[in-house]
Amino acid sequence: MTETYLVGVDLGGTTIKLAFINMNGVLIEKWEIPTNKKDNTIVEDIAKAIEEKAKSIGILKDQLAGIGMGAPGPVNLETGVVYQAVNLGWENYPLKEKLEQAIGLPAIIDNDANIAALGEMWKGAGQQAKDLICVTLGTGVGGGIIANGEVIHGVRGAGGEIGHITAVPEGGARCNCGKTGCLETIASATGIVRIAIEKMQKIETSILNDLYEQNGKLTAKDVFDAARKQDQAALEVIEEMSFHLGLALANLANGLNPAKIVIGGGVSRGADLFIENVTFYFNKFAFPAVAKGAEIRVATLGNDAGVIGGAWLVKSKIMNH
Amino acid sequence: MTETYLVGVDLGGTTIKLAFINMNGVLIEKWEIPTNKKDNTIVEDIAKAIEEKAKSIGILKDQLAGIGMGAPGPVNLETGVVYQAVNLGWENYPLKEKLEQAIGLPAIIDNDANIAALGEMWKGAGQQAKDLICVTLGTGVGGGIIANGEVIHGVRGAGGEIGHITAVPEGGARCNCGKTGCLETIASATGIVRIAIEKMQKIETSILNDLYEQNGKLTAKDVFDAARKQDQAALEVIEEMSFHLGLALANLANGLNPAKIVIGGGVSRGADLFIENVTFYFNKFAFPAVAKGAEIRVATLGNDAGVIGGAWLVKSKIMNH
Repeated sequence: MTETYLVGVDLGGTTIKLAFINMNGVLIEKWEIPTNKKDNTIVEDIAKAIEEKAKSIGILKDQLAGIGMGAPGPVNLETGVVYQAVNLGWENYPLKEKLEQAIGLPAIIDNDANIAALGEMWKGAGQQAKDLICVTLGTGVGGGIIANGEVIHGVRGAGGEIGHITAVPEGGARCNCGKTGCLETIASATGIVRIAIEKMQKIETSILNDLYEQNGKLTAKDVFDAARKQDQAALEVIEEMSFHLGLALANLANGLNPAKIVIGGGVSRGADLFIENVTFYFNKFAFPAVAKGAEIRVATLGNDAGVIGGAWLVKSKIMNH
Repeated sequence: MTETYLVGVDLGGTTIKLAFINMNGVLIEKWEIPTNKKDNTIVEDIAKAIEEKAKSIGILKDQLAGIGMGAPGPVNLETGVVYQAVNLGWENYPLKEKLEQAIGLPAIIDNDANIAALGEMWKGAGQQAKDLICVTLGTGVGGGIIANGEVIHGVRGAGGEIGHITAVPEGGARCNCGKTGCLETIASATGIVRIAIEKMQKIETSILNDLYEQNGKLTAKDVFDAARKQDQAALEVIEEMSFHLGLALANLANGLNPAKIVIGGGVSRGADLFIENVTFYFNKFAFPAVAKGAEIRVATLGNDAGVIGGAWLVKSKIMNH
């Protein structure tokens, strides 16, 4: 009997991550190709990459059950149309249709943050919880919400916009979305640096001041490194970020009563510094039964979450229908 | 051909509302019986009431497709066990099993706020939106959230606890749930009166002071009446309540991207005074695509929302399986 494989694809603005994954969620082969935005050969590039890789490792096309793919923007799950992907210059782009034509395999498309959440649910820190919030702290703050085992897309694919929860209703920093005070302006790498620059102007003896003078800039990693050395300004940044992240997650959880809350993204590399603090504020601001029901964990799949979530979509949506 | 009827039951701490509803969601017969908490004959009373009413209006038991019922506490939808109903003294009470034994018809149980949301979705202000937030402003603040057409129960039936979203993170009023600063301490009838008493101590010329002296107390209706007369203190109460309700709903919607937000409960009788204001703050604090996708409306079914939602559960969950 030949084995069946699921193809996971995670389409980003710079690279496209691809993987062949078996029915148990084990990565058999993973690789990357560059995202060719200029000529928009993205769909053809993906089709070609999958076909060539399959051939090179001796997998027949018949063994591929389908392609589950994440796109960087809101998606209509049923039609596979990407409403908008600013990074790629797409608007109402029929990605599913084009991909299926190019490769002759069934495809299913979702938002990249949503497939990361599905990946963490299936094989990561979500531990198969049917009710789960996944928040990705990177340059921005993304999110995927799963309730009753299904991703919440909402009416226009804008479900899970956790980064745009208003954390500071008045006088907050400007966000790329046009609002002010979004969680993204606080709990992203960019937000952490922004707050750090505010703090170091007040606490002039901070390590952060030295680093800033030395390098002409600050990074979230600088802030975490300084906090590990008990730098006061850096610790205050962590405190402020933890408070707002804990509050926002608690209020979302008051609506959703999730079993797991998974924190991922590059910023989660500093989780040892903030996870306890975030959990403290979460428990303080969550309805008691909600606090009791939820466990906050750091994501375990890293950059593989997306392709694994894509594979899960193939398994649960294409193979079960 | 004989018509099939759905039985909706809305179990409250004082009365039990019952209705026979046809497949199109039209109320054929509705009535109430008292809730006998003392002897806990609730299940028997409901069974008897349904059988007698059916007989008296010439409906055969065979014509009843099943019973959909709301209980005042978190419920396990699959087992029909009520985790807890403080008002009734129930803990882990197997309501579905007992009701089915007593009446010999299939039953399905959900939380009362959830069936109200389903009712408004099916036949009310929700207009069949598959993604909907329903918030009930009464003595407390209850909520029901529907995503992908299904109620969000969460891991312990505590989904939709909109009243316990933390509106005031620091220095808020004490809530019955044990936390402080919950939305319920602001946007419920009780919360409105609490804020009014604060405001009238600052603005001594308020109509509210006169009413309080006259009656020895204030009601939410007093506040609304005074606001309609442009009373400054009352208008400030409305402003404060609208800000927090708009913010809380926006932040929840940033996770859910709902098509409709339905505001019901006794306090919604003052909606003419606050709905515009709530919508203003909602739009201010919601992610632009989320604000664009959502419409805030006043509930239209009043006290019938529960029984209609119960009937919907029978139609969608019992008859479709």
